[in-house]
Amino acid sequence: MQINNHYIKQLLELALSEDIGIGDITSDAIIPKDRVATGIIISKDTGLVAGLEVVELLLSMVDSQLMLTPMLSDGNKIEPGVEIGKIYGPAKPMLQAERTALNFLRRLSGIATLTAKYVQAVADYPVKIIDTRKTTPGWRILEKYAVRVGGGYNHRFGLYDAVLIKDNHIALAGSITKAIEMARSQIPHTMKIEVETESIQQVAEALNAKADIIMLDNMALNKMKEAVKLVGGRVPIEASGNVRLETVKQIAATGVNLISVGALTHSAPALDISIDVIVE
Amino acid sequence: MQINNHYIKQLLELALSEDIGIGDITSDAIIPKDRVATGIIISKDTGLVAGLEVVELLLSMVDSQLMLTPMLSDGNKIEPGVEIGKIYGPAKPMLQAERTALNFLRRLSGIATLTAKYVQAVADYPVKIIDTRKTTPGWRILEKYAVRVGGGYNHRFGLYDAVLIKDNHIALAGSITKAIEMARSQIPHTMKIEVETESIQQVAEALNAKADIIMLDNMALNKMKEAVKLVGGRVPIEASGNVRLETVKQIAATGVNLISVGALTHSAPALDISIDVIVE
Amino acid sequence: MQINNHYIKQLLELALSEDIGIGDITSDAIIPKDRVATGIIISKDTGLVAGLEVVELLLSMVDSQLMLTPMLSDGNKIEPGVEIGKIYGPAKPMLQAERTALNFLRRLSGIATLTAKYVQAVADYPVKIIDTRKTTPGWRILEKYAVRVGGGYNHRFGLYDAVLIKDNHIALAGSITKAIEMARSQIPHTMKIEVETESIQQVAEALNAKADIIMLDNMALNKMKEAVKLVGGRVPIEASGNVRLETVKQIAATGVNLISVGALTHSAPALDISIDVIVE
Amino acid sequence: MQINNHYIKQLLELALSEDIGIGDITSDAIIPKDRVATGIIISKDTGLVAGLEVVELLLSMVDSQLMLTPMLSDGNKIEPGVEIGKIYGPAKPMLQAERTALNFLRRLSGIATLTAKYVQAVADYPVKIIDTRKTTPGWRILEKYAVRVGGGYNHRFGLYDAVLIKDNHIALAGSITKAIEMARSQIPHTMKIEVETESIQQVAEALNAKADIIMLDNMALNKMKEAVKLVGGRVPIEASGNVRLETVKQIAATGVNLISVGALTHSAPALDISIDVIVE
Amino acid sequence: MQINNHYIKQLLELALSEDIGIGDITSDAIIPKDRVATGIIISKDTGLVAGLEVVELLLSMVDSQLMLTPMLSDGNKIEPGVEIGKIYGPAKPMLQAERTALNFLRRLSGIATLTAKYVQAVADYPVKIIDTRKTTPGWRILEKYAVRVGGGYNHRFGLYDAVLIKDNHIALAGSITKAIEMARSQIPHTMKIEVETESIQQVAEALNAKADIIMLDNMALNKMKEAVKLVGGRVPIEASGNVRLETVKQIAATGVNLISVGALTHSAPALDISIDVIVE
Amino acid sequence: MQINNHYIKQLLELALSEDIGIGDITSDAIIPKDRVATGIIISKDTGLVAGLEVVELLLSMVDSQLMLTPMLSDGNKIEPGVEIGKIYGPAKPMLQAERTALNFLRRLSGIATLTAKYVQAVADYPVKIIDTRKTTPGWRILEKYAVRVGGGYNHRFGLYDAVLIKDNHIALAGSITKAIEMARSQIPHTMKIEVETESIQQVAEALNAKADIIMLDNMALNKMKEAVKLVGGRVPIEASGNVRLETVKQIAATGVNLISVGALTHSAPALDISIDVIVE
Repeated sequence: MQINNHYIKQLLELALSEDIGIGDITSDAIIPKDRVATGIIISKDTGLVAGLEVVELLLSMVDSQLMLTPMLSDGNKIEPGVEIGKIYGPAKPMLQAERTALNFLRRLSGIATLTAKYVQAVADYPVKIIDTRKTTPGWRILEKYAVRVGGGYNHRFGLYDAVLIKDNHIALAGSITKAIEMARSQIPHTMKIEVETESIQQVAEALNAKADIIMLDNMALNKMKEAVKLVGGRVPIEASGNVRLETVKQIAATGVNLISVGALTHSAPALDISIDVIVE
Repeated sequence: MQINNHYIKQLLELALSEDIGIGDITSDAIIPKDRVATGIIISKDTGLVAGLEVVELLLSMVDSQLMLTPMLSDGNKIEPGVEIGKIYGPAKPMLQAERTALNFLRRLSGIATLTAKYVQAVADYPVKIIDTRKTTPGWRILEKYAVRVGGGYNHRFGLYDAVLIKDNHIALAGSITKAIEMARSQIPHTMKIEVETESIQQVAEALNAKADIIMLDNMALNKMKEAVKLVGGRVPIEASGNVRLETVKQIAATGVNLISVGALTHSAPALDISIDVIVE
Repeated sequence: MQINNHYIKQLLELALSEDIGIGDITSDAIIPKDRVATGIIISKDTGLVAGLEVVELLLSMVDSQLMLTPMLSDGNKIEPGVEIGKIYGPAKPMLQAERTALNFLRRLSGIATLTAKYVQAVADYPVKIIDTRKTTPGWRILEKYAVRVGGGYNHRFGLYDAVLIKDNHIALAGSITKAIEMARSQIPHTMKIEVETESIQQVAEALNAKADIIMLDNMALNKMKEAVKLVGGRVPIEASGNVRLETVKQIAATGVNLISVGALTHSAPALDISIDVIVE
Repeated sequence: MQINNHYIKQLLELALSEDIGIGDITSDAIIPKDRVATGIIISKDTGLVAGLEVVELLLSMVDSQLMLTPMLSDGNKIEPGVEIGKIYGPAKPMLQAERTALNFLRRLSGIATLTAKYVQAVADYPVKIIDTRKTTPGWRILEKYAVRVGGGYNHRFGLYDAVLIKDNHIALAGSITKAIEMARSQIPHTMKIEVETESIQQVAEALNAKADIIMLDNMALNKMKEAVKLVGGRVPIEASGNVRLETVKQIAATGVNLISVGALTHSAPALDISIDVIVE
Repeated sequence: MQINNHYIKQLLELALSEDIGIGDITSDAIIPKDRVATGIIISKDTGLVAGLEVVELLLSMVDSQLMLTPMLSDGNKIEPGVEIGKIYGPAKPMLQAERTALNFLRRLSGIATLTAKYVQAVADYPVKIIDTRKTTPGWRILEKYAVRVGGGYNHRFGLYDAVLIKDNHIALAGSITKAIEMARSQIPHTMKIEVETESIQQVAEALNAKADIIMLDNMALNKMKEAVKLVGGRVPIEASGNVRLETVKQIAATGVNLISVGALTHSAPALDISIDVIVE
Repeated sequence: MQINNHYIKQLLELALSEDIGIGDITSDAIIPKDRVATGIIISKDTGLVAGLEVVELLLSMVDSQLMLTPMLSDGNKIEPGVEIGKIYGPAKPMLQAERTALNFLRRLSGIATLTAKYVQAVADYPVKIIDTRKTTPGWRILEKYAVRVGGGYNHRFGLYDAVLIKDNHIALAGSITKAIEMARSQIPHTMKIEVETESIQQVAEALNAKADIIMLDNMALNKMKEAVKLVGGRVPIEASGNVRLETVKQIAATGVNLISVGALTHSAPALDISIDVIVE
């Protein structure tokens, strides 16, 4: 992940401004300016940690003297009581950054943890768990990073870095074949075309029209198997649509190459992590 | 909610820029500029809808000709198949805005729905369900709005609009009494002081020192009852700490006035809502 | 004051960009890049100094090598000839920052000085001098800080951190009682409600309806005394409306708890302070 | 004035965000969304009005439906009771914009009014009253506009649009002559050079070195007369330094062409103007 | 092209602020506010027009009443005397926008025109002329659009939307094969991998390692032919390196599929276009 | 040049964000985080180098550890093989910054080089080569700096720092004399007035009306000579209009003082410069 990124900086600045506003009234009144503190980041939950670089950047934005010494790396397993890292520096800015830092760390760790569960569930199959564009607005890069930390892979990052032909595009173009032709004639040679299909017939047409990737949208398991057979490994196949932890293994068993899971980013519960601040 | 707000605008601009980037490659290649479309926002889930004004603002930011006609209002109940609103306007920008609009609507509706469950669980008691600062960074105003839509109430919005004296402040000041005095002597007369307590002794001290609100931090149920009795209605009491749907009613039964629930905003699953776009 | 604040940074960036534009034509032509200088900040006036941290931040924004060594602290008394601080560093950026730094320091010191005069005028009474929202647009946080430096206190910071019910709100709600009820039912429990009253009858109603603070708007002195008597110390009372240095003591004598003075921020003359730059 | 200016927009956005923050809590609770109102801008003071376009822009930024119908133009005389303009539109945004709009209008009118007093004081002489860079940071363009409204003229706008050679530049260059040569050899042919002088000898040198304008810095009246005589109308002469209303006429009588007055912008008291909002 | 794009808006805002600054001094002094004008955009040169949407957006940013009626579309041929479009609206903002509008239109038309010459030069071959990342910083999207207008195609838009393995990457990974493996194992399935090669041996290795595209970097013509033969149409081949109008046809004749030309964007001379403004 | 300038920073931030987007996919996959590299900036072309400070600032914005050690200064002559500077630091950010740094350096060096050719062409005459407002939008300050590096001089920077009366202004004012009077009566005393003339008659009128500078717009050589004779050195004369390298000497021979050349900035080809990155 490119932590020095204008999207990430904008989100962090927004996060700090919405929480700090005109200032931390309580600490301004009570905490002397010269007090230093140590903050120990401790897990109270079980899963994978993700987001330590974000915490580090955030701390430096609040006060350049706040230093994070990570004791783990992103992707490491955590359980209740495990120390994740230590923060040193002036007490006032540390208390100001505490909640926002945790809000980032808990959410990203939650996503990595849920992703790992899906990855584990299909460990017996040569299939990749991938994310979607169902991310929290403003968090696209961070959440897609957390998916990678959890062992998953990324789908396209936005509307701009790959072609995904959906039902509306097909209807307007007249056919899958025409839609692919229209796209191919205009896009950079560096870009791929994925087509969303809803029937075996559409899969066949996409294949003939030289789609680079074929998505099976909400297909039944037996249809998926049929599609896999038809494609015969010529292009990657993505299964998509309301995938759940309970159903993902069956889907993997159909032989698809990629399974996209919106829940990774839109419904992962936060992991419980806290910071014990000891003011000296 | 003040929809015309600089925090909200910044988040929406960030959300659009991270998704659209240099442009929607697929639609640029396939959809003629003059095509118009109708988008029907349909629920596929059960709960409360929240965020329609955000969707309206977002659509107008993508293209001033995109119009939303809501068929429901925020706070209305939805179930699978219910139509929430209709979008009219040019097809290309509608398709571009679709996913981001849903990402907002689904998340905010998810929070309103979860809040309503907590509110329902304590309906027999004169207690308010309130949120915390455990919100998604960048989303503070929107998520606190969704809590209100769900029947909950807001805690302070940030570090700047109320005093909350915690263990570190108490330790540094020397006592709860001294911490309250230090704060009271500096803050605007319009501002309240809440004190976090961990024992009945601390509750008593906070009460004597004229705290405006007393928070019971992770106290056992019987301790809470004791605190309620001691305070005797002189100031509001907030129960806090790992509140769950299964435990919230028992907490309400202790007689506290407010119960704060971090999960409302950090772990609410998104509600399933989609848009059927019909290009004409 | 939270000097590392997005509002303050925006104002300082705007201030520098409007003055420096494409560059300092004169110094670019004449001053060699490697010249260093010392700048001595000297008072030519009598009052209180305020704004040294702002000057320090501003200097660092122009050039990270510009260093301020304060010889006084905010709130210290100054008179003609007193040295306030010394600036060391490269000559070109020092000359560029000079005027803007002084514009901040002079204005904030002017406000602190005027505030101190009001505070001094009511020193015999247990009353607080407070500011208003009649601040210079863009300068809210800085000017409210200068009021505190002068010994005054702050009213609410904006429309967002306290409820202030005025005549229009009362008229629309139907009565003071209803307006307070409407507000109380929606706001966070951490927030107070102040009501603006224009008659003893309104004071009585506000008191009954459990307003947290009562403002007497442009009342005559004898009315104020009557209001103070009626309230009997149950809630704080704020006197408001065209308060002047000549009248403030009489108002204090009525027994009100707070006197708000718009002139502190909208009409304080700047203090005369200059910088002697010695290029080496 | 170029109202559609990025400096002005930035200041207005900052002004609104610092006052409105997350929203207007009071009006959100009490004022129905569909209420409209009329606001009458009324003078309570005597002087010149300035800033109506700023008010208009500000209103439109808060809500595009807020409309200002000016009844006067900038530069018109006002006295207590005079109606300056009317605002129509939705009540909630009108109340939100009210204080900030007045803060702009009152300050700018105060500057125009004070400028007019200086201009009036020297009406018998062919001399221009001009401003300085001692403006309120963030307000440069607006305050210089208000000076023009009051009948004054502008000095340079910043460090970038004219050369002003001061003592430090002269010392570093070696002499006035060398400083002018250095500047002339580098600047655009469209740019003028003004030299700050402290003695008749320096005036003579500046004149010989073909300075475009000569500033007399804090000179005694008889010295100024001597300088005027020496220059003999070949270049404009500016008198500068602690000019006050009581002394400005004497300075004008020396025959200088321009008198710069820092107090116009750094110490003008605000004019008393209010808005009567009538919610319908 | 997505004209409503945050990159484009930022560039246009920067362009206007650097030219207009505090305002158009000349027009402010001379042109009455209510004057309207017609501006006729006329070509004085021969080539292809490009950038009309940019001009339209720019005009609307200066003043919402400025209207462009295009008489041609992007990609149309122009020659001296041809009218490209008409602008109607208030005279002052039209004169302010004139130069910046032309600076955009002239540059983009210059790029489209030069691109068309390259495309024309290879018209006999089934090869695409493509651009590079050698664009004018800040102008990436606009210049790549102009290349498309001229009949060319785009290479990747930045470092983020395709993998391009260069000599440094190969050296660090150990071999082309390893570099491709490292990239393939981490990137989204929607992304392609292009490899820069400098010898036939490298071409062979890239082909075996399943590169999606092979770039021939500065190869001699006979080497290119050899590479084309070796690849045998299995993946597209891009020729790269100091391509000039004089040499491009020979390169096309080698059978490569794509020829990238940096000069399209870094050295295209502006087309001569002007606006005749008729103030009414 | 004021490198620490808000215009320049905005352009550099835009340039980096458009190229890096969400990150450098290739280097992220292949280059270890701890690798350092040396980059040698080498000329492959003949001319003048310009923009080293821009490169230095850009590198520091990508990564504070990237250090540039210039081996030449702006304005130095370069030819193929000459080393311009060395970059040290982490390999990944160096590769990310490489292309954008070169895009700046190549373009600015191209402008300086072309300017030097014009300056050389008129070396026998006491005339200055000056630029115009025909700069690349977003690049005004940088390109005008490059012109100075090449030995040229700057015309006004924008619409805000000098008056330039053109045909439309004259038509609206009624005459050159009236236009000058209108401008003179409103502008700061620090500002000059230049008048665009198309005939000897207009030159005479501008001279009588005390224009500070007279521009000859597209006049024939003999008309220019006539104008020079008429003006007799009283004010500077600028020749303007489609000046080319082939014609500039003849124009200089007419005796004009300034020759403005739009091509300096709108049509200078980039200089060929590259960076050899050696990863260690």
